[in-house]
Amino acid sequence: MTLSALDSALLGPLFATDAMRAVFADEARVAAMLRAEAALARAQSAAGLVPAALSPAIDAIAAKDLDPAALGRRTAVSGVPVIPFVKAVQGALPPDLEPAFHKATTTQDIADTALVLQVRDALDLVAADLRAILDGLSSLARQHRETPCVGRTYGQHAAPVTFGFKAAIWALGVAEVAALLPALRERVLTASLGGPVGTLAGLGETAEAVGDGFAAALGLHPDLAPWHARRARIAETGSWLALLMGALAKFATDVAHLATTEVAEVAEPYVPGRGGSSAMPHKRNPVSSTVILSAFGAAKGTSLTLLDSMAAAHERPAGAWHAEWHALPTLFGLASGALREARGLAQGLVPDPERMRRNIDVTRGLLFADAAAGRLSPVLGAKAAHALVEQAAGAVRDGQGSLAEVLRARPETAGADLDAAFDLGPAIRAGARTADRALAEISRLAAFLHSA
Amino acid sequence: MTLSALDSALLGPLFATDAMRAVFADEARVAAMLRAEAALARAQSAAGLVPAALSPAIDAIAAKDLDPAALGRRTAVSGVPVIPFVKAVQGALPPDLEPAFHKATTTQDIADTALVLQVRDALDLVAADLRAILDGLSSLARQHRETPCVGRTYGQHAAPVTFGFKAAIWALGVAEVAALLPALRERVLTASLGGPVGTLAGLGETAEAVGDGFAAALGLHPDLAPWHARRARIAETGSWLALLMGALAKFATDVAHLATTEVAEVAEPYVPGRGGSSAMPHKRNPVSSTVILSAFGAAKGTSLTLLDSMAAAHERPAGAWHAEWHALPTLFGLASGALREARGLAQGLVPDPERMRRNIDVTRGLLFADAAAGRLSPVLGAKAAHALVEQAAGAVRDGQGSLAEVLRARPETAGADLDAAFDLGPAIRAGARTADRALAEISRLAAFLHSA
Amino acid sequence: MTLSALDSALLGPLFATDAMRAVFADEARVAAMLRAEAALARAQSAAGLVPAALSPAIDAIAAKDLDPAALGRRTAVSGVPVIPFVKAVQGALPPDLEPAFHKATTTQDIADTALVLQVRDALDLVAADLRAILDGLSSLARQHRETPCVGRTYGQHAAPVTFGFKAAIWALGVAEVAALLPALRERVLTASLGGPVGTLAGLGETAEAVGDGFAAALGLHPDLAPWHARRARIAETGSWLALLMGALAKFATDVAHLATTEVAEVAEPYVPGRGGSSAMPHKRNPVSSTVILSAFGAAKGTSLTLLDSMAAAHERPAGAWHAEWHALPTLFGLASGALREARGLAQGLVPDPERMRRNIDVTRGLLFADAAAGRLSPVLGAKAAHALVEQAAGAVRDGQGSLAEVLRARPETAGADLDAAFDLGPAIRAGARTADRALAEISRLAAFLHSA
Amino acid sequence: MTLSALDSALLGPLFATDAMRAVFADEARVAAMLRAEAALARAQSAAGLVPAALSPAIDAIAAKDLDPAALGRRTAVSGVPVIPFVKAVQGALPPDLEPAFHKATTTQDIADTALVLQVRDALDLVAADLRAILDGLSSLARQHRETPCVGRTYGQHAAPVTFGFKAAIWALGVAEVAALLPALRERVLTASLGGPVGTLAGLGETAEAVGDGFAAALGLHPDLAPWHARRARIAETGSWLALLMGALAKFATDVAHLATTEVAEVAEPYVPGRGGSSAMPHKRNPVSSTVILSAFGAAKGTSLTLLDSMAAAHERPAGAWHAEWHALPTLFGLASGALREARGLAQGLVPDPERMRRNIDVTRGLLFADAAAGRLSPVLGAKAAHALVEQAAGAVRDGQGSLAEVLRARPETAGADLDAAFDLGPAIRAGARTADRALAEISRLAAFLHSA
Repeated sequence: MTLSALDSALLGPLFATDAMRAVFADEARVAAMLRAEAALARAQSAAGLVPAALSPAIDAIAAKDLDPAALGRRTAVSGVPVIPFVKAVQGALPPDLEPAFHKATTTQDIADTALVLQVRDALDLVAADLRAILDGLSSLARQHRETPCVGRTYGQHAAPVTFGFKAAIWALGVAEVAALLPALRERVLTASLGGPVGTLAGLGETAEAVGDGFAAALGLHPDLAPWHARRARIAETGSWLALLMGALAKFATDVAHLATTEVAEVAEPYVPGRGGSSAMPHKRNPVSSTVILSAFGAAKGTSLTLLDSMAAAHERPAGAWHAEWHALPTLFGLASGALREARGLAQGLVPDPERMRRNIDVTRGLLFADAAAGRLSPVLGAKAAHALVEQAAGAVRDGQGSLAEVLRARPETAGADLDAAFDLGPAIRAGARTADRALAEISRLAAFLHSA
Repeated sequence: MTLSALDSALLGPLFATDAMRAVFADEARVAAMLRAEAALARAQSAAGLVPAALSPAIDAIAAKDLDPAALGRRTAVSGVPVIPFVKAVQGALPPDLEPAFHKATTTQDIADTALVLQVRDALDLVAADLRAILDGLSSLARQHRETPCVGRTYGQHAAPVTFGFKAAIWALGVAEVAALLPALRERVLTASLGGPVGTLAGLGETAEAVGDGFAAALGLHPDLAPWHARRARIAETGSWLALLMGALAKFATDVAHLATTEVAEVAEPYVPGRGGSSAMPHKRNPVSSTVILSAFGAAKGTSLTLLDSMAAAHERPAGAWHAEWHALPTLFGLASGALREARGLAQGLVPDPERMRRNIDVTRGLLFADAAAGRLSPVLGAKAAHALVEQAAGAVRDGQGSLAEVLRARPETAGADLDAAFDLGPAIRAGARTADRALAEISRLAAFLHSA
Repeated sequence: MTLSALDSALLGPLFATDAMRAVFADEARVAAMLRAEAALARAQSAAGLVPAALSPAIDAIAAKDLDPAALGRRTAVSGVPVIPFVKAVQGALPPDLEPAFHKATTTQDIADTALVLQVRDALDLVAADLRAILDGLSSLARQHRETPCVGRTYGQHAAPVTFGFKAAIWALGVAEVAALLPALRERVLTASLGGPVGTLAGLGETAEAVGDGFAAALGLHPDLAPWHARRARIAETGSWLALLMGALAKFATDVAHLATTEVAEVAEPYVPGRGGSSAMPHKRNPVSSTVILSAFGAAKGTSLTLLDSMAAAHERPAGAWHAEWHALPTLFGLASGALREARGLAQGLVPDPERMRRNIDVTRGLLFADAAAGRLSPVLGAKAAHALVEQAAGAVRDGQGSLAEVLRARPETAGADLDAAFDLGPAIRAGARTADRALAEISRLAAFLHSA
Repeated sequence: MTLSALDSALLGPLFATDAMRAVFADEARVAAMLRAEAALARAQSAAGLVPAALSPAIDAIAAKDLDPAALGRRTAVSGVPVIPFVKAVQGALPPDLEPAFHKATTTQDIADTALVLQVRDALDLVAADLRAILDGLSSLARQHRETPCVGRTYGQHAAPVTFGFKAAIWALGVAEVAALLPALRERVLTASLGGPVGTLAGLGETAEAVGDGFAAALGLHPDLAPWHARRARIAETGSWLALLMGALAKFATDVAHLATTEVAEVAEPYVPGRGGSSAMPHKRNPVSSTVILSAFGAAKGTSLTLLDSMAAAHERPAGAWHAEWHALPTLFGLASGALREARGLAQGLVPDPERMRRNIDVTRGLLFADAAAGRLSPVLGAKAAHALVEQAAGAVRDGQGSLAEVLRARPETAGADLDAAFDLGPAIRAGARTADRALAEISRLAAFLHSA
């Protein structure tokens, strides 16, 4: 029985990947908590605080043996899962090791360190999808760097660009968010080890050494000072995921519009059975865009929960921390579905260059109005040129011919090189040039994804 | 494998009730979709459009026979669960009834009508908890209508009130949100039957009769005009749930503070094993308040997703509708846990009147500063009285005695009835009187909860 | 010097109306605070608590005499504007009346009561715009109840509807939110009079009489119990404004898309100089839709601030109340601009029925796919009919002719009444019928706007 | 007449600084637009595209000569301020230069570049406050590194820490957000120069040179590819401001609680007239904390508007961009007030070490429960030790003496070094050590603030 659409057997497969669900599954959480406890035992054993046998004994306990459902029933009483977890692990340890277990640490250390281990796995999944998306979109941009298509502002035809330019901007939008990942990752992959109130008083002079050893055993940065109630990194992770889905949503917004019946410049990749309608046999709905846009819709508000949790009272708050548990895995889940669909689009989007060309002509030359005004300016002055073209545009809209025809019929345009104004060449060259610059920037921003 | 804390075997029991989870479980969703289809068949059969045997044949199909997981795998392709659902039901029907199934309707009709049936069950659960909470808090307010305690503004001791007054305000805060429920319920319990684009064209002249029959069979209001892309009622439901958790959060905010070590005027109900710490054997953490505050933390942003979805394009949007799926059951889930804990608090909160009395004295009479200024005003003028008391308050803070002592030492206070100023009686009577008015208003606002 | 775009001399006129700005102007706020104090004096005089001369003396003070800027400088120190306000009013009163001023009340009573008076004026402005919008859209819907146009789902052509149906749905979306106004108004137009901690202890036995007189003098409901820290009504007002802008945003979303170059089924009303581009002489940007969509974009998050403020500690919180000040007038400001533009659209939108008709044909009959499947079902069975039409739709997309042609070329369609399937009549009748039902419902829901 | 509390003459001084208001004032905006146009003219002149005289001629125009209010009235028609701005500047230029003005660029280039120039000034103000806050808090932390005080979790006394540790954690929370500034600044301080659809087609082969010259003249990074509809950097700036206010809110949350009457471990700096009450002469409300918490309350939702705007359609969206205008200056305004108050707190907070010491004793030794269990573990085993201390804690709460007394009365504690358990020394040393590590990390993170 599930409440979240991400977890529903019926809806979940549409909205999140199994790989991401596995990262945040109960068993993975318990396994990460066991890893954290084992690492602590190892570091404490190195400092002579606990028996050397403790860490291997913890390693020997399997997450599934601890029965998450039984822990959950007790969590509903205790308020935090670590308390029943500690009792369950103690029950599974040899009695002589039991007293040494969970020494000097606290619930939140284990829970947050486990979370960070899960976040590491989750970010790896995200990075793999980012690489594929950027590769796919960059390749699309290169392929269509000179494919002319309509540029649109406020939903109106504005001036010609190239489809490769558009694809490069989608990719650059994703790449500039992706580029924030390495530094974010460095920050967030930090262990938590503060003990009850953050000062690790229970470890005395060994605190720093144990803290460093604990983090090192897990491949995390050591916790220089407690983050029990210092949650910027968690909030930043959530904001980053929201930014990421925002960049994907820009892509999906454009795709969904380019795939509308009247525009029809792209189609989502063909997948048998996808996008149909229970009522309308002819429909091909843009399912990938829909998934991405719904993920962004849900992510925006969810990311706010993590911001909200920053105002955490004293050494541990009542509620703010727990609210995070609702938000962070949900954001990763939403991202997993959005990334999977964006990857599908980036690799399989079907552009229709012929239709793009026809759409350019739909306004009978109005797309070249800016260029025409530019060519008329030297002859008429800029203001008069702008005004004349504005007037001519009205005539075109009223059906009096194409913009070229209407302008040529006006005697004052005689001296201007109007042919040049209606040449697609400059727009194509400008689109291609801008796409090239964007692609170079993407390579620079996303280099880390390929070196990993 | 789950992503949401609400659905986790480990964390879910703390944050949501099984009863609410059952309402939104996959099987319940599929069952509600089957009920919607059966009701449609019944109404269409009455209009002579489909065989009379169709509806009983649908009734005979059990949700679990349709295998939600299999439907889910196909939903990930199709983009909406109704398409595989329709195929699966058709496969389960006698071949001669198959063509009549799902006639003239569309995916969203079935999905939204099923949702509304689930919302009805969910609101019943909410109402039952609301009744218990209001009963509990009202009883607490009556019991302590004359128990003096500190009134606090900006975290500072301000003037005395009674604990019953405080409880009555908590209850009134919940009651005024509860009072919005009957009208909301009327609005939201509306069937959806618009067909592919909302005009129910496939039913021709029978549209109205079938629509009315469909709704009546489900005990819902008929759909006078399609709400496929008219989502105010769904957004309003989400906002209402957020308001509700806001009212509970006001209660929990106060409880969590009153339960702090230095204040200690209330304790959460004693539950063995609850609120302990994995590190600190003496801790008794306010788990109920924590659950409520974390629910509100998560609910705020989640409710925004439903607002966001209102800008739905044309006859059905790409993404906005799907984003709702992430938000509404989650909000009900969060509410279920918050309500359960608030119910526990309302019924079992342990006030400590003795400690309340001692806290009043902690500021050595400063709580009566306002009353003292009032008594001095006739003698000194209001401004001078206010200034004198302000100055005397400083002396009290500096340890020069109680406010009564400091003021009495000043010759200019001679003519004033200072004894009266330090009498708790007026504050108690005012608190009790206000509690009585609030309780009467609660009875009026929440009467519907008892008549149901 | 301003920070908010709503207040900028440069941008404000685009985004908010002067009428709304006047409601929330500093002078209006101070005037409302004076009205509240005068009403309190009147009620207290009736109870024999203050001199009869006090109320007229307050009436005689003009808001502008109190110099908001000077009060503001002192507010930055005191933390709330009421403290310098009280001092300034006391300075302006005859010395003998000074001690009686602001008796037994508190900062928040005056500030919240003044706010409610401003909200009343603001809601009147909102209601006037709502009436005009609903009248305009209803008239548009009646006029075009039989104008056929494309119905779109997921951005794809789905099936024909009528433009009047679409306009009626826009109107109904607005009307169903508008219909919440009378009850909301009843709730929110409540005076605040609780004194320092909400129990009005300073008034003793006269509390109820003074409270009732105070509210009556202002035309407000009396405060049965303090709402200093019970903020559901304020949060609800904000959520309602967000819902309202959501309903307008649904309208604007559709208009902006219908006005896109390729669709061109409507144009925003022509206003000389509007929607131009600094670069492109031919542009006509949908400025009204842009204003509405940006208002909704900003309103969503802003409404959350009011929800957030519900978790208000004890008798008055530190911060939660003050955050409201940022949000509520801003929401009314955003609404004022969105309503003004929606009114302009509702009254002046320019539909192009000819273009609508042409767009129907753009998909060469695919819009009738559902109807065709319906006509083929009796002959072929529903599943085979759906499959055949799906296949034929593919052929149409591949340029093999219109759907009618492709289907007629298939021998198995011989017995079906395909002519009927491609008849627009049923879709028009269904659209008109649904528009009529919606219009009747709008009349019912919005009747209160005309009786006011 | 203003709508936003930030701009109100009455409330604005409390919530935002004049310095920040000056950065975003209309005149500053117009001046920034003029600077952008002049820089463009300079770069275009270097490329031989416009007369050399154009740039100085633009420089000669003063922002105030363009009459923001008049521009605003025309903006309400045109939809964007740049269009009337361009006309007004053209009117102020010598006629021969007029045609060369605003060449090849577009509204959004000028508006976004002007915005970035304002953001640069705003970030300088933020950085100056951050430096002062970190210096103040670091100094407080050093001063009190060994001042013992209560550590609190879930609002309950948990174990002793030092006040310097607490101050260091506040500072580290601010520093870790501050540390994101240099890289953010690098990213966001990028010019916009894309022309109508982002490809700068109007400049042909000179596009790159002009773009580089334009940015260099303004001290900004060049725009490698248009960000008209690529808004991650703007959204990131908003999220960063929200994170910043979150870190300040953590500080304010703690201060507001430590300043409550029962706790009284700190007082906000004394400012005559601050924190008073219109009703209660003895009140000293925490005004600085209140301002910070209200800023965070309003900032959370506001930051969401910028996230929302990322889903920007095609080359420029209808609405999403305009919504940003409502949010970004508002966030800077909220931050300015929060930073000013946090600076005041950091420099003037008044800790009461004596009271801190007394509060430690309030629970009669329970704060040492964890340490006591630690000392008993070697003797009794960890589980029995924990259980015994839990039981003893109950006895202490029931008034049977201090924890030391209760434990010593139990024979089984005989062999344990209980004296050591009740020694504050280890907690103080641990607090001081953690404070030192945090301070070192702050120095590293915030070094850039001192080198600027």
